[in-house]
Amino acid sequence: MLMAAMCVALLSGLQAQDLPRQVSIILLGATGDLARKYLWQGLFHLYLEEVGKGHHFRFHGTALTSTEQGQEVIAKVLESLSCPGDMASGHCAELKAQFQQLSEYRRLKTPEDYLALSKDIEAQVEHEGLRETGRIFYLSVPPFAYVDIARNINSSCRPGPGAWLRVVLEKPFGHDLHSAQQLATELGSFFQEEEMYRVDHYLGKQVVAQILPFRDQNRAALDGLWNRHHVERVEIVMKETLDAEGRTSFYEEYGVIRDVLQNHLTEVLTLVAMELPVNVSSPESVLQHKLQAFQALRSLQRHSAVLGQYQAYSGQVRRELQKPDSFHSLTPTFAGILVHIDNLRWEGVPFILMSGKALDERVSYVRILFKNQAFCVQSEKHWVAAQSRCLPRQIIFYIGHGELGSPAVLVSRNLFQPALPSASWKEVEGRPGLHLFGLPLSDYYAYSPVREQDAYSLLISHIFHCRKDSFVTTENLLASWVFWTPLLDSLAHEVPRFYPGGAENGQLLDFEFSGGHLSFSQPLLEQLVPGPDSAPLPSDFQVLRAKYRESPLISAWPEELIARLAGDIEAAAVRAVRRFGKFHLALSGGSSPVALFQQLATGHYSFPWAHTHLWLVDERCVPLWDPESNFQGLQTHLLQHVRVPHYNVHPMPVHWRQRLCAEEDQGAQAYAEEISALVTNGSFDLVLLGMGTDGHTASLFPQSPAGLDGEQLVVLTTSPSSPHRRMSLSLPLINRARKVAVLVMGRMKREIAMLVSRVGHDPKKWPISGVLPDSGQLVWYMDYDAFLG
Amino acid sequence: MLMAAMCVALLSGLQAQDLPRQVSIILLGATGDLARKYLWQGLFHLYLEEVGKGHHFRFHGTALTSTEQGQEVIAKVLESLSCPGDMASGHCAELKAQFQQLSEYRRLKTPEDYLALSKDIEAQVEHEGLRETGRIFYLSVPPFAYVDIARNINSSCRPGPGAWLRVVLEKPFGHDLHSAQQLATELGSFFQEEEMYRVDHYLGKQVVAQILPFRDQNRAALDGLWNRHHVERVEIVMKETLDAEGRTSFYEEYGVIRDVLQNHLTEVLTLVAMELPVNVSSPESVLQHKLQAFQALRSLQRHSAVLGQYQAYSGQVRRELQKPDSFHSLTPTFAGILVHIDNLRWEGVPFILMSGKALDERVSYVRILFKNQAFCVQSEKHWVAAQSRCLPRQIIFYIGHGELGSPAVLVSRNLFQPALPSASWKEVEGRPGLHLFGLPLSDYYAYSPVREQDAYSLLISHIFHCRKDSFVTTENLLASWVFWTPLLDSLAHEVPRFYPGGAENGQLLDFEFSGGHLSFSQPLLEQLVPGPDSAPLPSDFQVLRAKYRESPLISAWPEELIARLAGDIEAAAVRAVRRFGKFHLALSGGSSPVALFQQLATGHYSFPWAHTHLWLVDERCVPLWDPESNFQGLQTHLLQHVRVPHYNVHPMPVHWRQRLCAEEDQGAQAYAEEISALVTNGSFDLVLLGMGTDGHTASLFPQSPAGLDGEQLVVLTTSPSSPHRRMSLSLPLINRARKVAVLVMGRMKREIAMLVSRVGHDPKKWPISGVLPDSGQLVWYMDYDAFLG
Repeated sequence: MLMAAMCVALLSGLQAQDLPRQVSIILLGATGDLARKYLWQGLFHLYLEEVGKGHHFRFHGTALTSTEQGQEVIAKVLESLSCPGDMASGHCAELKAQFQQLSEYRRLKTPEDYLALSKDIEAQVEHEGLRETGRIFYLSVPPFAYVDIARNINSSCRPGPGAWLRVVLEKPFGHDLHSAQQLATELGSFFQEEEMYRVDHYLGKQVVAQILPFRDQNRAALDGLWNRHHVERVEIVMKETLDAEGRTSFYEEYGVIRDVLQNHLTEVLTLVAMELPVNVSSPESVLQHKLQAFQALRSLQRHSAVLGQYQAYSGQVRRELQKPDSFHSLTPTFAGILVHIDNLRWEGVPFILMSGKALDERVSYVRILFKNQAFCVQSEKHWVAAQSRCLPRQIIFYIGHGELGSPAVLVSRNLFQPALPSASWKEVEGRPGLHLFGLPLSDYYAYSPVREQDAYSLLISHIFHCRKDSFVTTENLLASWVFWTPLLDSLAHEVPRFYPGGAENGQLLDFEFSGGHLSFSQPLLEQLVPGPDSAPLPSDFQVLRAKYRESPLISAWPEELIARLAGDIEAAAVRAVRRFGKFHLALSGGSSPVALFQQLATGHYSFPWAHTHLWLVDERCVPLWDPESNFQGLQTHLLQHVRVPHYNVHPMPVHWRQRLCAEEDQGAQAYAEEISALVTNGSFDLVLLGMGTDGHTASLFPQSPAGLDGEQLVVLTTSPSSPHRRMSLSLPLINRARKVAVLVMGRMKREIAMLVSRVGHDPKKWPISGVLPDSGQLVWYMDYDAFLG
Repeated sequence: MLMAAMCVALLSGLQAQDLPRQVSIILLGATGDLARKYLWQGLFHLYLEEVGKGHHFRFHGTALTSTEQGQEVIAKVLESLSCPGDMASGHCAELKAQFQQLSEYRRLKTPEDYLALSKDIEAQVEHEGLRETGRIFYLSVPPFAYVDIARNINSSCRPGPGAWLRVVLEKPFGHDLHSAQQLATELGSFFQEEEMYRVDHYLGKQVVAQILPFRDQNRAALDGLWNRHHVERVEIVMKETLDAEGRTSFYEEYGVIRDVLQNHLTEVLTLVAMELPVNVSSPESVLQHKLQAFQALRSLQRHSAVLGQYQAYSGQVRRELQKPDSFHSLTPTFAGILVHIDNLRWEGVPFILMSGKALDERVSYVRILFKNQAFCVQSEKHWVAAQSRCLPRQIIFYIGHGELGSPAVLVSRNLFQPALPSASWKEVEGRPGLHLFGLPLSDYYAYSPVREQDAYSLLISHIFHCRKDSFVTTENLLASWVFWTPLLDSLAHEVPRFYPGGAENGQLLDFEFSGGHLSFSQPLLEQLVPGPDSAPLPSDFQVLRAKYRESPLISAWPEELIARLAGDIEAAAVRAVRRFGKFHLALSGGSSPVALFQQLATGHYSFPWAHTHLWLVDERCVPLWDPESNFQGLQTHLLQHVRVPHYNVHPMPVHWRQRLCAEEDQGAQAYAEEISALVTNGSFDLVLLGMGTDGHTASLFPQSPAGLDGEQLVVLTTSPSSPHRRMSLSLPLINRARKVAVLVMGRMKREIAMLVSRVGHDPKKWPISGVLPDSGQLVWYMDYDAFLG
């Protein structure tokens, strides 16, 4: 609200007071690269745009450099400023002279320097009979300097009452969630949220800035198309030909994901994916919808990414950072990421983010490819490009470079004719022979900006006009880091695939997705030759069959073991449904079954889910929607992917009448009754168990007699670890099953697995030792880590 | 079992008995078109294959024609028979002379003729010292003649004990499910199932016959690919350039769906879609798996099809069938059908069946297009056809004709190198410039038969060798009619789109699918101009707002009304979730809400399902999985398409403890408690009601006091119609809702709607009149049929 109020004040200020207004702009790091290349030009551009519209301006370039040196640099920069091509040169010279007049260089280092600057501005404003409207501090300095500068601005350089302060910050904004949070907290102790403008210069690129307006102005055409029913995939790509040479000290610390994906490509992603606000020119709505888009992003897994590194990189790092010859960097210079968005609009649509250095071309774009849901009856040779629904249909936000060489918005002619503001966008001229994304340029409606504008000029104008939606708010920044940090952590020790660079990369970096996993299309044969210290590969071992506690044991590497168990469960299901018309499966919670659930959810096409009843082996006394609930794991990893009828799913009634496992509600008895009613003889077709490091199974714990024998089918028990109260199938009920599978995985289980292999029938001490089906079959599934240690 | 036994007998017969064996083949309709063109040649081919392998043969061509005329025709046919190209001409002449020697023509008309034939065969066999192994009757006659012939064969012409009988039938096998069933029953009274061989000549085409062996021999490569995760679509296509001229008397009765889709394309569909048996050379397994594939087909709707008719057709019918000038046929000569298969392997994969006459080319194929799940990092110009995963990947069973001109199996080189039996399949020679399905021929591994073989030759050989899987069993035939008949019925009065024929069709027949619906890509503008007797179109009316019983009324055509109601519900949901974090929605059963459920399931991407609780307004006292259960409708049309957490779905406990609405189980009270626990103040955010023709709403019925007032929130009631016992929210509870929407649709509701508009508050007589929220809002949604009559 404050933000909106201040922007209104800015716009309506002229009516409110009589004195002419002044805005002071202080550019910190005014002699640096970015400032010399873009920021001074951007300030000049702002001046050209705003001069004569009611504001006076003063520009203070500052740095740590001595006054003399600084003035010299700035004088040169100011001399080189240019006007838009369509401005008369005389007029340009005049305005440039004015701008030079209004600009100064000063050293800004100590608290006293800040105080002096503030005093000087006040004196100048008063002297000229102006009223100070606001101050913009543009921090074009390394992030380690932020906090000191912020403290000085806050304590000594805030404008007086009624005038606003805007502080502009350049990335990086932290290295991960923790550091970003820390920096945000520190800055937050000096500035209000609405005072901070974090720059992601991608948001200033003309085509990126056009994404929302385009979606808005073409609502009618896009409304039915912009969703999972019609979008095949979205590609968000920034390819570079340059490598990191000369910048490795920065790059080695950040890598491609932090440098490009976490910020630029993620910002673009949210612009494409977010629900479109009713009013796209309301910064508040845009920012709020953007935040919602972040919340719908599915968490990234280690398998959501493929990483590469150009071969020369480690050598460059060694040279530039004086590392020993033995040094090899793991920093990725190439990444492909598969993002999924878990809402009804985008569910199932792959969003592919890709960026890399030393690739075959420099180009950035967003490509929305639509599904081909047409069947064209005539043979191909009769297809007409502008009409045939069988040719590719796509919208491309061509951010820049590439074969087209300029920013553009492209819409396939067989899609619709887009509306773009005709004052600022014009049709691209024909370029015979030019093909883009599989189609000749002439098959697109193609528009590019009437006047190309630099990203920083646009952003500086947006800072002045309070367009906060062109900047990264603290909330959005942290949401982005929440999304990226777990992936970065899980990839920290991943060895990237090495690539030669340029066109020679061939198909080496091509990747593909399947079931949410990303992998390179070409296997790397040389990596399969084990080196002297390489771990044995899964394929080095066959599935092992043996005996464990006198029952069959199946042992393998985790992936194979899960595949085998899933296959065995499916076979049991098919058999049961064939014989009895239904399959009763009782499942345990915990982490090992998650992989099993995922396998069953994706790989088993003939599984008779419609005839399967799902029961719980045990449950924690928490509401079913609690993350700790076993049922919740089943829901997330299995139920929402397969079609089990609602009434075939039997959660344990641990939350009956909104009370947790109250004895008087007789939840255990009710579950027992349900089992008795539906499961013939109470014999489940298959019961899946685990084994705890203390020898517990289901929720039957050592030194706790409940459920080990007796008549009760379902019991309430007490766990030594929290949440303590549990509901569990009893051992006698478990032992009535036709088949019991015990899944044991991970090195942590090694000791108990060894121990249990030697103990006799002693369920009071080792509940797992009491698992011995009356007439059914018991099979142990153990991975090598648990079995071989 | 009998079938298997008889085939074994055939193969091992030589060991069992000493006498040389004879098979008699009786070709009925031996002078007809099909016989002259294919069947005699097929019999000769069988003879060439089998001569010297232990069987003697006799061939009896029969017809109704006089002996003299028939002999003349047959003599000509036999003279024109040809040997395979690689047979020496001398040898050919010798075998042909033998075959002519073994063949005769005889008239077969009366029961006496059949008896005489049987006696003659027996006499001949005995005279030559042979043992009769079996008789094949090939009925190449119109279907109306089947029953008489069948009766005669059965009563007078069966071979003696120990010898088998095979009766071969040509399509059509009925006109719809009813007639097919009738014919099957009649034939079943004369023959055992294993004695009947129904020919679909598509199953004899070399490429079609290769589909299962191909899937079998390439299991390793296809195992991971042949499913919904990888298949983008399947196209099964038979295009003809010819039209129906000269055949309209047949065609007018059948049309393209009965002529081509119900049989040929459906057979091919099952071969592609069925689960692959472990042993593909077991006819029993193949037939059983095929039947399972039929069972998984989703029912076709009227919107699953687009129909066309070439413009000259009606004129041809008028001429050939002497119809008046005013006659216009509705028979489709073109159809596109969208088939979905509801199992885990194929769910969501579109199977497109298409056939038509008077199209631009003659070609038949099955095309399996795989999903592009790759991202290629290099710019397109660097892609390599045989490797790039970004170029189309497809398998094509090229059944015949088209630009390739011969049957072939094509596999994209970027897919895998297929295995085909090298003795019978060879690589296709290069044809520079030839493109098929978007790729040059050289981008495929392409194989065609070493020796092209006619479908009938192959089928006749399969009849002899007992390969029942190449024929249509009664079960499969009826399953196919079960699938097609409802669509044919619903399309009976559909006006097809007219097309000029040939290349001029342009894009006129192109169609596309969305949400299970098929429609032509190009709208037909002229059809939108209403003729003198045309009904008003939905767009002629706006959504109407008015008052009904002093509450807001929204009225529109059904589609708009449902869209409006769905939109209002979504808006209420978004508001509630924003304010309270959850949305409590109580839904009625019945047919009107089904369209609403479908609309909500497909069109509403921002609906906060994860935070929505679904309650039932009323329920029938039947198990939840009963088709009559209101919950079952909700499950089928909504729940399985959206992600509502299991524990947010609240079916009424009408089947608690496996008893239906037992008073002592206090199900109504339990539901009331659940509502009280979760729904603040028992105020649902939205209750959706309907109105019965007797003025009932929810399950509150006239002249039945339960639930009309009092304290009870949920009640058991009695319906005048079956099932009589119901559970229902009470009026007082309904009236606590924040919003109540009453949906009334269809002409049937016209009278009650008019009546209720005039009655006062009289819930005992008209329960609907008691709906009046205490402080919430009541809105009536009525379609024009109900409101305007």
